[in-house]
Amino acid sequence: MAEYTLAELAGRLDCSVVGEGTTRISGVCALSPGQPGHIGFLANPTYRRLLGHTEAAAVVLTEADAPSSPVPALVASNPHLVFARLAELFASPRCARPGIHATAVVDATARVHSGAEIGSHCVIEADAEIGDAVVLGPHCVVAASARIGAQSRLVARVFIGVGVTMGARCVIHPGAVIGADGFGFARDGVRWVKVPQLGTVRIGDDVEIGANTTVDRGALDDTVLDEGVKLDNQIQIGHNVRIGAHTAIAACTGISGSTVIGRRCMIAGGVGMSGHLQIADDVVITGMTMVTHSLHAAGVYSSGLPVDDNRRWQRNVARFRHLDTLAGRVRRLERGPTAGVVPAADEEGSDA
Amino acid sequence: MAEYTLAELAGRLDCSVVGEGTTRISGVCALSPGQPGHIGFLANPTYRRLLGHTEAAAVVLTEADAPSSPVPALVASNPHLVFARLAELFASPRCARPGIHATAVVDATARVHSGAEIGSHCVIEADAEIGDAVVLGPHCVVAASARIGAQSRLVARVFIGVGVTMGARCVIHPGAVIGADGFGFARDGVRWVKVPQLGTVRIGDDVEIGANTTVDRGALDDTVLDEGVKLDNQIQIGHNVRIGAHTAIAACTGISGSTVIGRRCMIAGGVGMSGHLQIADDVVITGMTMVTHSLHAAGVYSSGLPVDDNRRWQRNVARFRHLDTLAGRVRRLERGPTAGVVPAADEEGSDA
Amino acid sequence: MAEYTLAELAGRLDCSVVGEGTTRISGVCALSPGQPGHIGFLANPTYRRLLGHTEAAAVVLTEADAPSSPVPALVASNPHLVFARLAELFASPRCARPGIHATAVVDATARVHSGAEIGSHCVIEADAEIGDAVVLGPHCVVAASARIGAQSRLVARVFIGVGVTMGARCVIHPGAVIGADGFGFARDGVRWVKVPQLGTVRIGDDVEIGANTTVDRGALDDTVLDEGVKLDNQIQIGHNVRIGAHTAIAACTGISGSTVIGRRCMIAGGVGMSGHLQIADDVVITGMTMVTHSLHAAGVYSSGLPVDDNRRWQRNVARFRHLDTLAGRVRRLERGPTAGVVPAADEEGSDA
Repeated sequence: MAEYTLAELAGRLDCSVVGEGTTRISGVCALSPGQPGHIGFLANPTYRRLLGHTEAAAVVLTEADAPSSPVPALVASNPHLVFARLAELFASPRCARPGIHATAVVDATARVHSGAEIGSHCVIEADAEIGDAVVLGPHCVVAASARIGAQSRLVARVFIGVGVTMGARCVIHPGAVIGADGFGFARDGVRWVKVPQLGTVRIGDDVEIGANTTVDRGALDDTVLDEGVKLDNQIQIGHNVRIGAHTAIAACTGISGSTVIGRRCMIAGGVGMSGHLQIADDVVITGMTMVTHSLHAAGVYSSGLPVDDNRRWQRNVARFRHLDTLAGRVRRLERGPTAGVVPAADEEGSDA
Repeated sequence: MAEYTLAELAGRLDCSVVGEGTTRISGVCALSPGQPGHIGFLANPTYRRLLGHTEAAAVVLTEADAPSSPVPALVASNPHLVFARLAELFASPRCARPGIHATAVVDATARVHSGAEIGSHCVIEADAEIGDAVVLGPHCVVAASARIGAQSRLVARVFIGVGVTMGARCVIHPGAVIGADGFGFARDGVRWVKVPQLGTVRIGDDVEIGANTTVDRGALDDTVLDEGVKLDNQIQIGHNVRIGAHTAIAACTGISGSTVIGRRCMIAGGVGMSGHLQIADDVVITGMTMVTHSLHAAGVYSSGLPVDDNRRWQRNVARFRHLDTLAGRVRRLERGPTAGVVPAADEEGSDA
Repeated sequence: MAEYTLAELAGRLDCSVVGEGTTRISGVCALSPGQPGHIGFLANPTYRRLLGHTEAAAVVLTEADAPSSPVPALVASNPHLVFARLAELFASPRCARPGIHATAVVDATARVHSGAEIGSHCVIEADAEIGDAVVLGPHCVVAASARIGAQSRLVARVFIGVGVTMGARCVIHPGAVIGADGFGFARDGVRWVKVPQLGTVRIGDDVEIGANTTVDRGALDDTVLDEGVKLDNQIQIGHNVRIGAHTAIAACTGISGSTVIGRRCMIAGGVGMSGHLQIADDVVITGMTMVTHSLHAAGVYSSGLPVDDNRRWQRNVARFRHLDTLAGRVRRLERGPTAGVVPAADEEGSDA
């Protein structure tokens, strides 16, 4: 197992040391309870109270928190980033073990790089292409003419549809479905006629896609995820959506068809977006927001009602149903007693 | 590749032609940028501005838009429907290549039609029945006694539970789980006792089910999807739900147990429905609506708050927490100065 | 098939009988229409009107409903629980058929109990451990060093990640992904740097996890589901979440990272929770609630707006955007005519 002194780590990661630089570190740990010989981190102020009790040998933290540290520390402007680098340094990465498992079914016309690892029960269809050092865990399906870029990892049971292209160093988690048909139907009287989904999905380099997330193929043009996009679990991306570089989206969010999202956006969990919208670069959207119109400027956007005691919520919700009426009553009050008759006591309950 | 003149297409699809009927068309394309020799369409007014710049050889559009077209056009009352038919005409459908892949595991008592295609690593359990021209892509599981109707296609990695029945011409996308147990537990003190889920799922003809959608089996009676129902991705259908013919539901919607939905409804994405509700025929529900009571009449229904600037949202949400109090204050104002004391300035903030 | 008299069933399940105790019962059925020779139940008052028409031979119901029963009855304080026990009594449980299917791929270092059943195309990686009477349906993947406790059942196509541990008698439905990476990235300028997810998932005894639900592994510490937790379909559990014993969560709910949920909570469908929250024991949360802060006391909590007619909703939503302004106007009215100028008629529409 690798071991470094705190001073060596500071040099590698361009931090300063507070306390004993010869402290030996052999891994990363949580701040609480912490682990002797390991290094933890403090970034979220919620956890500041845990710092005094840590059993870690050292901690990564900001300059402001450094005086409170009971143990030696690496001081950094972004402790979370430094910690990510430390965790990567101590982790043993999963490298490809080149070869095709005996139970995999690989079409004769598929091109699998000799440096790729194809796991048990994988299926690779005609003309698909698998790059160098790619890892396909068990039960992955790569459909006809799809391409997986070098060093990408499909952890297990990933479905890649016909013609989907994926860049280098992507990570796709189990259950993800990339390139199923978009939801396209035209109405013919009472019946729905399927609109063939003729586009595909194009994924840039360094994209990560979470477990059970679905990214639909385009109807005519392609659905596009630019480089560095990070999608959490159980996200739904509709057909012809485009997501700009380095945008991150948290779990359970759904993006309807043809919406275009800018670069470097941060979209929280449970958000829903209508179709055909434009979202600017650097937009931040908080959890469970209902995005029904385009957002043309960077900024923070929200909607929804936060949790409340059930009884108070019931009373307020009942009032919301009559908010328009209430506003009219305020308007009448502002106009004064001559503006009209004061509403009867039961007006607001009339359609409850 | 098939090629038709615009006049031939008009004849097949019962449209009229504006412009040169001898224009040759060999495929469909997007309106923008369009593709020479191909035909695009304009249905959504949002995209009207793209019409002038299209490189398509022809366009399907409404009579109202026809005068603005720079290229020959098919004129139709429902351009999207005509376009769906055109796309189907030019697409090469995926036909069954009859046979059972060597890696598939088929129980000796299963009845697989000789015209069906069973893909690699499929599993077909005892007494299951697979109809003519059915396509099972790789990694599908059809559990005991399930039945798949003729010409249905399970794209890949579809799970069909014990006893589930499916009509003809259905399409089921990867990751869909049809017939897992419903969520049924009875409380015994602090512990939950599982209620065996003894029903199954019955699916009509021409049903389409999206990627990673789940349809639970019934507790006693069956869960039912009638003919022509279209479900998008990541939808959850609880036990004993019944969905009427030709109803379409967009992604990420969840329907709780025993709710009955009518025919020809259109339910947008991210909607949640409580259990044991009745939803009438021809109901339209907009995205992310929270359906907590039955809807007995056709119409358009909504709830939720649309996205707003975060700071304004925070101020309004703070007021919502006191909406009932605010309504009371308006009532007092209406009653006039003799009705009581004007509230102190801090009343509305007292429980913030 | 087993058959019991009503009196025998009453004795086994500690109920009293109303009517003919010699009535013979050979199975359970729905209340409506009911099935001769079978027993139904009535717990939800919504269905009381069906009681008079049941064709069941007997019914389980409360003392209050007993006088209305047209057929013999078992009287119980919790008819749903008694019915669950009856259904279990008559159901034929799925027992392990010990053995490893020929198509399964089991690492030489994995320890599979001789009483376990390993289905077709399963993959069991190095050092994994499978207990006695475990059933792995087709297409399950158990990654390296994971442990599955005795009598647990993975119905089909379940993914269990590296090092995940699971207690006895768990049931995991198709498509569930337990132990994929949490969503952890640190920002480095515009790019995201992955934070290695070094924890795993620990699952207690008697846990049930629904179809296509995802439970992420911890970043440093583990994600934990205590004994008796019941998760419905399509739930997302973020990294380092902890869920207390006997808590039940309905479909489509998402819990963000590091949130800690107490024991015996009941969380309805479509709920979203922010990260790093504390939820007390015995908390009940209604459907689609947006939980943005900790809940420190037992009780019922809610948020969201219930469905309404679309036009009224639009009018009320437009007013909500100006609720803060409206409250200010009410304040001015309370202060009386000397407090300031009455707002111009267009004030509230100024930013609409």
